[in-house]
Amino acid sequence: MPLAPEFQFIHQYFKPLAGSGALALSDDAALLALNPNEELVLTSDAMVENVHFFADDPVDLIARKLLRCNLSDIAGMGAKPLGYLLTLSLPKRCFTHHWFKLFTKGLAQDQQQFDITLLGGDTTSNPTNIVFSVTMLGKVHKGKALRRNGAKVGDGIWVTGTIGDAALGLLSLEKKIKTDPYLINRYHLPQPRVGFNLNNIATAAMDISDGLLQDLGHLIRESKVGAIINSSDIPLSKEAKILSKHFLETCLTGGDDYELLFTLPVDKEDQLYFEAQQAGIKITKIGVCVDQPVGEVKLLDQNNQILKFNKTGWSHI
Amino acid sequence: MPLAPEFQFIHQYFKPLAGSGALALSDDAALLALNPNEELVLTSDAMVENVHFFADDPVDLIARKLLRCNLSDIAGMGAKPLGYLLTLSLPKRCFTHHWFKLFTKGLAQDQQQFDITLLGGDTTSNPTNIVFSVTMLGKVHKGKALRRNGAKVGDGIWVTGTIGDAALGLLSLEKKIKTDPYLINRYHLPQPRVGFNLNNIATAAMDISDGLLQDLGHLIRESKVGAIINSSDIPLSKEAKILSKHFLETCLTGGDDYELLFTLPVDKEDQLYFEAQQAGIKITKIGVCVDQPVGEVKLLDQNNQILKFNKTGWSHI
Repeated sequence: MPLAPEFQFIHQYFKPLAGSGALALSDDAALLALNPNEELVLTSDAMVENVHFFADDPVDLIARKLLRCNLSDIAGMGAKPLGYLLTLSLPKRCFTHHWFKLFTKGLAQDQQQFDITLLGGDTTSNPTNIVFSVTMLGKVHKGKALRRNGAKVGDGIWVTGTIGDAALGLLSLEKKIKTDPYLINRYHLPQPRVGFNLNNIATAAMDISDGLLQDLGHLIRESKVGAIINSSDIPLSKEAKILSKHFLETCLTGGDDYELLFTLPVDKEDQLYFEAQQAGIKITKIGVCVDQPVGEVKLLDQNNQILKFNKTGWSHI
Repeated sequence: MPLAPEFQFIHQYFKPLAGSGALALSDDAALLALNPNEELVLTSDAMVENVHFFADDPVDLIARKLLRCNLSDIAGMGAKPLGYLLTLSLPKRCFTHHWFKLFTKGLAQDQQQFDITLLGGDTTSNPTNIVFSVTMLGKVHKGKALRRNGAKVGDGIWVTGTIGDAALGLLSLEKKIKTDPYLINRYHLPQPRVGFNLNNIATAAMDISDGLLQDLGHLIRESKVGAIINSSDIPLSKEAKILSKHFLETCLTGGDDYELLFTLPVDKEDQLYFEAQQAGIKITKIGVCVDQPVGEVKLLDQNNQILKFNKTGWSHI
């Protein structure tokens, strides 16, 4: 009996990506053992055509972004990534060797870069658009996972990299601003900060995926503190700086940064600088945690005047 | 700062479903510890509107079927379910309290029935149709997971429950046969065979989701044996029996059974009957593993003549 076409695609393109726990993708589920001093970290994200990416985006970059968004969540917990399960819901036009070859090329490239393997998944048809989901697994020493709820009054508020590039890259792709390959690349290919060892330094951490201000709101709400941010301290790329006069709101509330947002007391800053240098990651202090109002982000301009925006971040509804 | 509407829905409807490892759904990922003598079992399935369910199916039943399809994979590995991550990609029409109330009511009902909790997930918009994905986690004693690759020549081939009801239920919903509430219910609400202890009995096992004949093909291909099946031994409900004269192919190749398919040597049959009685699960021997041709299912009618169908099972392409 020949395999049904769907399984032929899985066999040809996905088996080479499978790790040992995946049982060669031949069973109903994957198996994974864990050391007794470790905890498993688990996160799921979906990516939808015409919401998170466009039909004409390069297919290998869509695959890599899919992994990287989930890797960023693993980094936000201070964990080491292990592997992932993948579901694909695809319209007929995608069931070609060309599409699968490009898609799995992207996966393979990032599997190697981030030292992860495919553990399992599901391929189904979808009469309309492409929808992916990834469940990414990571591991962390017991009790060492970074949480959102540990920030204390007086802790500095820090971010990695630069903020707002991806949101501007999206505007650029949408032809709302002029074409900028650097910003577009930052939208297509985020740099998840895995391997940045903040576990004994940060009091709270998360990744920034739905806009800096909104995500900072989540962190300080969970930590029951307030925040004061100096907008002029927020790190912008030189490309974003040029645009920031008109697009500062886009930078601070747009999605897709996939940088880390974290807090720590002043006496841990030396350790932080050491780890950042080890990891080769740019870090910037952008503000401080205050006692109230709890859950409120006060954004100050260079004259210490409060800046107000219409929205704080991305929402799907 | 008030929560964005998307997070209000998550807060209100999903937090009550969250287990302890979910960290109240407030962080980037969930945490899970495991005993050193256990392995984690992981499976992902997607469900797509107009492929796996219809827009007018009862929303709570869609939620329960989503969990049950994945629970069936966990049962297929002989594991105990622990919890799940859920992604929802939803058109605007779903972002109502009515929809979320019904959907989470279904989840809550089956969480209780199968003793599982929500561990995490993602809610996004989708301009077109509903797409869900679930990653279900289970645990199994190290080395005791049931696999597809262990069937031996001479092993009997067995199934749980009855075969083909759900495929006929789908025909009934599509008005291709007369309305039958029993068959429709079997389509809407599969009965995953979790808790059926086959771990020291079966040589190979899997769940039947894409049609008995196709799935048996997968099992014997992995086990490098052939199979002879007596079609008159395949257990049919009384509703299916009435229809089987014209719809036997539908019964044996249609999807959505979510029964278990497994093999064992004759000397384990006493143990099997004991476990089946303990679990209150109907079991039926439908055939035997033979040495060749490897991977081929020979289906015999009551006169020992070979039965041929146009297809063996469900394919998405």
